[in-house]
Amino acid sequence: MQRLPFSRRATSLAATLPAAAPAGAIAFDSGHASPSVLPDLTTVATRALNEHRDETLQYAPRPGLPELRQWIAEYMTADGCATKAEEILVTNGAKHAIDLICRLVLDEGDSVVVTAPTYFTAIPIFKSFGASFIEVGQDRDGLDVAELSSVLARMASEGRAMPKLIYNVPDFHNPAGVSMSVARRRALLELARRHGIVIVEDSPYRKVRFEGESVPPLKALDTEGQVFLVGTFSKLMAPGLRVGWVAAPPAVIARLIQLKSDGGSCPLTQRMIVDFCRSGALDAHTARVQSTYRSHRDRMAAAMRRELPDASFDVPAGGYYLWLELPPNADGDEVARLARDAGVIVLAGSKFFARGDVAHPKNFVRVAFSHATAEEIDEGVRRLAAAYAAATSATAAMAGAR
Amino acid sequence: MQRLPFSRRATSLAATLPAAAPAGAIAFDSGHASPSVLPDLTTVATRALNEHRDETLQYAPRPGLPELRQWIAEYMTADGCATKAEEILVTNGAKHAIDLICRLVLDEGDSVVVTAPTYFTAIPIFKSFGASFIEVGQDRDGLDVAELSSVLARMASEGRAMPKLIYNVPDFHNPAGVSMSVARRRALLELARRHGIVIVEDSPYRKVRFEGESVPPLKALDTEGQVFLVGTFSKLMAPGLRVGWVAAPPAVIARLIQLKSDGGSCPLTQRMIVDFCRSGALDAHTARVQSTYRSHRDRMAAAMRRELPDASFDVPAGGYYLWLELPPNADGDEVARLARDAGVIVLAGSKFFARGDVAHPKNFVRVAFSHATAEEIDEGVRRLAAAYAAATSATAAMAGAR
Repeated sequence: MQRLPFSRRATSLAATLPAAAPAGAIAFDSGHASPSVLPDLTTVATRALNEHRDETLQYAPRPGLPELRQWIAEYMTADGCATKAEEILVTNGAKHAIDLICRLVLDEGDSVVVTAPTYFTAIPIFKSFGASFIEVGQDRDGLDVAELSSVLARMASEGRAMPKLIYNVPDFHNPAGVSMSVARRRALLELARRHGIVIVEDSPYRKVRFEGESVPPLKALDTEGQVFLVGTFSKLMAPGLRVGWVAAPPAVIARLIQLKSDGGSCPLTQRMIVDFCRSGALDAHTARVQSTYRSHRDRMAAAMRRELPDASFDVPAGGYYLWLELPPNADGDEVARLARDAGVIVLAGSKFFARGDVAHPKNFVRVAFSHATAEEIDEGVRRLAAAYAAATSATAAMAGAR
Repeated sequence: MQRLPFSRRATSLAATLPAAAPAGAIAFDSGHASPSVLPDLTTVATRALNEHRDETLQYAPRPGLPELRQWIAEYMTADGCATKAEEILVTNGAKHAIDLICRLVLDEGDSVVVTAPTYFTAIPIFKSFGASFIEVGQDRDGLDVAELSSVLARMASEGRAMPKLIYNVPDFHNPAGVSMSVARRRALLELARRHGIVIVEDSPYRKVRFEGESVPPLKALDTEGQVFLVGTFSKLMAPGLRVGWVAAPPAVIARLIQLKSDGGSCPLTQRMIVDFCRSGALDAHTARVQSTYRSHRDRMAAAMRRELPDASFDVPAGGYYLWLELPPNADGDEVARLARDAGVIVLAGSKFFARGDVAHPKNFVRVAFSHATAEEIDEGVRRLAAAYAAATSATAAMAGAR
């Protein structure tokens, strides 16, 4: 084969395909749903493929099925974001939505604000557009707006270009599990307004809340039309449907539709979703999702305290993940590697930091409680604890040998 | 709303969303399937959502379902392209495949070779990557390789960068209906090899053949691994499934997978497709598609000869479209506009030319025979003939007034 002329964006991405999991391994790495909460969609599919055959098997309108856009707008309105159907663009899942927003906003060399840590799958999307990263910390109230404000002020004083986007998961942050307080949300909006920066509010876990009152979405507090909310049915119904959306001002949606040259998103899954949601089944399903993952979280938190007392973590009030902090000398990469050998797959915390050119804490791992059964959670945590012990004794042995 | 910072790629695309068709209009504009050939997929969907629920409702592997990749590889092998499963990447339709190839290969400022005319939906995809166009003519043997060879030689002698991609629809070209001869295919491969240019072989209509022997795909003749074939189930089964693929060398597929950060393509439609195809239903379905569209083509060709004898066209041996050449003084934009008023939607030929900075013939329109019924074909062609007569008399009146 000839040497082919790859683009800068292609060559900037390292080959990072995950290795296949060993047989019998317990998967704490993925955002897969619990099989016990995958809904029965046979009835809606049968209707979609018969009564709606001429809709579901033809090309769909690029903005999405009108009824689904309308349903999403009403759903968001009920959640505090007054939204109209023309403010919704249906996408092939949330990552496709992020990708389209990047196309709309980013030129090569632009910078993007992300938390440290941030959602690891978003990182290569931004990189593929030639973006660089501005990392900002977070605490129990979410993204540290004061820190970001200082960074932006310094950049402005140095005459550097402002970032184009602020990307965040404000509800049940992936991986950290934290939610932004309403005060922080207002402060972030004000800061972004002042500097003319778009906020991408990625909110897959918003309804996966186990307790407490929800905080208004950034989009609900936005008076300037500069928050683009990314939603998905992956966590509401099932990942395999591959349907997400962007909510943004109509002029932004019109531009995004132009950039979405894909023959429309799948009308079959769109029709299945809107019929399922309109039937009232979504409310019961959401309650089931919440109670299932609440019990998974509790089971995993208890197992961690029992088996791995060296790890500390905040118990998240929603979402899919525990963000484990190991003692300062622990190496998350090594723990993840030994855990894989021990039959449990976790993600090293290092994957969740966007910048490769600065040092980050190494003593974190992300552990998903969504997919595994209660028994797998217990056994997986035991395996993880064994891997941690092995990593620690190896480190101690190395220290002793010095 | 604030003025938001859009990217160069976003601002380079004009707002070209099609207006909604007037009620009662006959659609000769789209590549929609005939409703009469939309398959009954209820059985495969029910199985997919029950027996395979844990596959079809979870995230799918990014390369595609292994069984579908295997089936596509066997299907291509049977068509003369020896292909392995690892040479297949499943995508969200063919346009997504073209988009991924652009990400892999194109940097801003690169150029792309297209025929004049070319597939109009591919144009904004290339533009969105900041590409410029090199247009090359075609005749009844397809893309004019001698012309392209001269253009490339001149560019090389002027020290200009070679194009990165040659994009073509070699089987039943959209819109022109022509297929490349085998000699032309070999010549194009040799030229591309000499200059190190990737060929994108977009082949949605390959199996929509009404008569005659098929010519080997470019990919089948490629010994250098530089043809990336784009396939789709939109024309084989149904557009609404939104499943296509790229066939390319494994190293290229591995790179494309990295650039496809989408949580995998929809596993539900993938499973439905592989079960449908493996059941043997595809062969019968393909035969039905061929005979249906053959009769549509014959009906439309007869109606054109009867109602619109001023239009000339080559009768295509496959595909979905007639490419009508009107007399030299006719204005395809005006005819399309008046046709819409008269209740039939056709696409002006001007949409199919990639370069906006050079003159192109104005006297073409593209007319799809796929979607309309026989009666709609007759009536639609009558309306088109009336629109053409109105455009002609308006032109004559203007000429007389001078």
